[in-house]
Amino acid sequence: MRAGPSQEEIRRQNLGALLRYVHIHGATSRAELTTSLGLNRSTIGALTADLAAAGLVSERAPRETGRAGRPSLVVRPESGRVFAYAYSIEVDRLRAARIGLGGVVLDRRQSDRPPGLPAVDCLPLLAGFVKEMHQAVPAGSVYVGSGVAVCGRLRRPDGAVHVRPDSAGWARGGELDKPLAEALGELLPQERPVLVSNAADASAVAEHARGAASGYDDVIYLHRDVGIDAGIIVGGRRLTGQGGYAGEVGHMVVNPGGNPCGCGSYGCWETEIGEYALLQAAGRGDAVGREAALRVVDAASRGDANAQAAIRQVGDWLGFGVANLVNIFNPGVVIFGGTLRDVYLAAAARVRSRLNSLALPTPREQVRLRTPQLGEDAALVGAAELAFEHLLADPLDAG
Amino acid sequence: MRAGPSQEEIRRQNLGALLRYVHIHGATSRAELTTSLGLNRSTIGALTADLAAAGLVSERAPRETGRAGRPSLVVRPESGRVFAYAYSIEVDRLRAARIGLGGVVLDRRQSDRPPGLPAVDCLPLLAGFVKEMHQAVPAGSVYVGSGVAVCGRLRRPDGAVHVRPDSAGWARGGELDKPLAEALGELLPQERPVLVSNAADASAVAEHARGAASGYDDVIYLHRDVGIDAGIIVGGRRLTGQGGYAGEVGHMVVNPGGNPCGCGSYGCWETEIGEYALLQAAGRGDAVGREAALRVVDAASRGDANAQAAIRQVGDWLGFGVANLVNIFNPGVVIFGGTLRDVYLAAAARVRSRLNSLALPTPREQVRLRTPQLGEDAALVGAAELAFEHLLADPLDAG
Repeated sequence: MRAGPSQEEIRRQNLGALLRYVHIHGATSRAELTTSLGLNRSTIGALTADLAAAGLVSERAPRETGRAGRPSLVVRPESGRVFAYAYSIEVDRLRAARIGLGGVVLDRRQSDRPPGLPAVDCLPLLAGFVKEMHQAVPAGSVYVGSGVAVCGRLRRPDGAVHVRPDSAGWARGGELDKPLAEALGELLPQERPVLVSNAADASAVAEHARGAASGYDDVIYLHRDVGIDAGIIVGGRRLTGQGGYAGEVGHMVVNPGGNPCGCGSYGCWETEIGEYALLQAAGRGDAVGREAALRVVDAASRGDANAQAAIRQVGDWLGFGVANLVNIFNPGVVIFGGTLRDVYLAAAARVRSRLNSLALPTPREQVRLRTPQLGEDAALVGAAELAFEHLLADPLDAG
Repeated sequence: MRAGPSQEEIRRQNLGALLRYVHIHGATSRAELTTSLGLNRSTIGALTADLAAAGLVSERAPRETGRAGRPSLVVRPESGRVFAYAYSIEVDRLRAARIGLGGVVLDRRQSDRPPGLPAVDCLPLLAGFVKEMHQAVPAGSVYVGSGVAVCGRLRRPDGAVHVRPDSAGWARGGELDKPLAEALGELLPQERPVLVSNAADASAVAEHARGAASGYDDVIYLHRDVGIDAGIIVGGRRLTGQGGYAGEVGHMVVNPGGNPCGCGSYGCWETEIGEYALLQAAGRGDAVGREAALRVVDAASRGDANAQAAIRQVGDWLGFGVANLVNIFNPGVVIFGGTLRDVYLAAAARVRSRLNSLALPTPREQVRLRTPQLGEDAALVGAAELAFEHLLADPLDAG
């Protein structure tokens, strides 16, 4: 009987599964691959040989184990040879990195984003970073594609990504007249796929793959850039929503009598926990930005009473919103990213106390509160994950 | 090269895909199956023959089409022959139904649940319904399993389902001393799998498969029984959370200065939109329950000013919470189930107005607000879907 997937398709799936495994877990013995992938030894051997011939993995004998018998060969991703470019377009900063298979940062560049620099003018700067880095790429390397993490929300129907007009970081200087991926792609050295995500989603993907959320299927990564939003993973997959807009937790109204929000509503979560709220509460309402917010955290740690009161207030609202999300999602882990990391660390007891009083018993027992393990690299590493995705889906076709 | 899935496994997958298609879509021509499943004609023919031999589908010539050429045979699920039992354990009512493949209700029974009847004493009543219905089952029928929809939240790790102690409908009379599925299974005529879900999840599954959410991947089904909770589908799959507790939207705090909630918090969504809030706002705080709540809706439609004010107030809070969920999930459709259906219909303009002022522009444009298409049958039909799941996963093994 003939049926849908052919032997060839199955082989591709298995090649992808093996490559994905070493991409996420790093160097792995053939014996472990056999067990973890549920394939027999000869299949693992054949798949590894194919991937090695394509230059995607290498095999070598492990270090002396001291055990008797022939040691199982170790398969590792060719991190130095197979790479993606990753970009992070932030409110006040532009970053690019060359990231090898396995999530290894091989090279990086960074500059401030001048205030008011239009989105369209960020792209040549990023392309310039890539030109520099590309000159240092060893011969025989394989560039598989690019991933971009962008501050603010994006529209993602059918992969054609336009930047949303009302996203502050972009509106401030005019819009792109074509999808970001296409506009950037035209400036890059080689024609390869360019994938775009918002920074919260990219960071969630990275922490899920190889960071603080590793091993959890249900993850909320809280991110602060233009506003507060979240990269959310449910059942192991990114929550995108019907049109790619899911995760706007910053506009969950937590305080109906609260301050006006830029979205037109009142008491949105980001008006209570954002940098402006923190600075305002600390009596520093004339300051702006990440550095100013971090100075409040620092002042609190040195005993400044105003700063401490501000941290308590923001910590309470932080815990309040997290409790709502814990009741709604029953996540395994909530990660506090960006400046929320520092606020959370300074106010962890307040956050936990609000969670205890507002979240239902079992979900609150099941959730872990964490800070990012990949730190500021999360968005870049996550952007690279997007670029590796088509390679992992079909390794021999995409290489 | 040997690889993971064998031809036999692929065949099973395809059998499942075909059976699932006709289960969801009803009678389907072979031509449409060929296109929709992406398999060739001879494969469809062979798969259909296997399923027909197992008594799961039948084939017949379609009615005269008027077109030239040999008409494509029509494949339909054997709804009268292959069935599940479905149960709905509610605060004040017990229901059971015999539901055929394809979601057809073949028979049903119902009784009030006496106030205070312990959970453990509901099960013999349900088993009694099944005994009655089972006597009328035609010879040669196949009972594939049972699905139970339960009011309140359940714990679902590894399929071993215990009823949560703090769930009002259950606590009121003592707990089960074994998993519900096991306790019920022992009372049923034949040993078959018994799957358990909460009513919100079951209703969401049913409306997604064959109701108001058909064709949407991102669905929120708001349900009222013990409290307010939601069956949530994201990316086409049920949101369960890390421990099976996701969907407790009733305990999202919307009004920090609001009324105390049974959970120990204040201003939870269910304190603002629940039946008690509606009755209270209408000056009928001494009444309780579904019927009393529906009388408020009815009074409002007949011009009762107090009732109208209550509907407006609850409608505002209903829209408020829906706006939060729309920002967080970007759903394609939100469905108002149970008595929320009637409140929503009476206050649709208020709900929509709050949504317009509180939700972000694009997600609010993308969401449809709907009432259940399956009405009160949603929980039963959804429970049956759970029971059919293992048949659809491996049709010839499970039949």
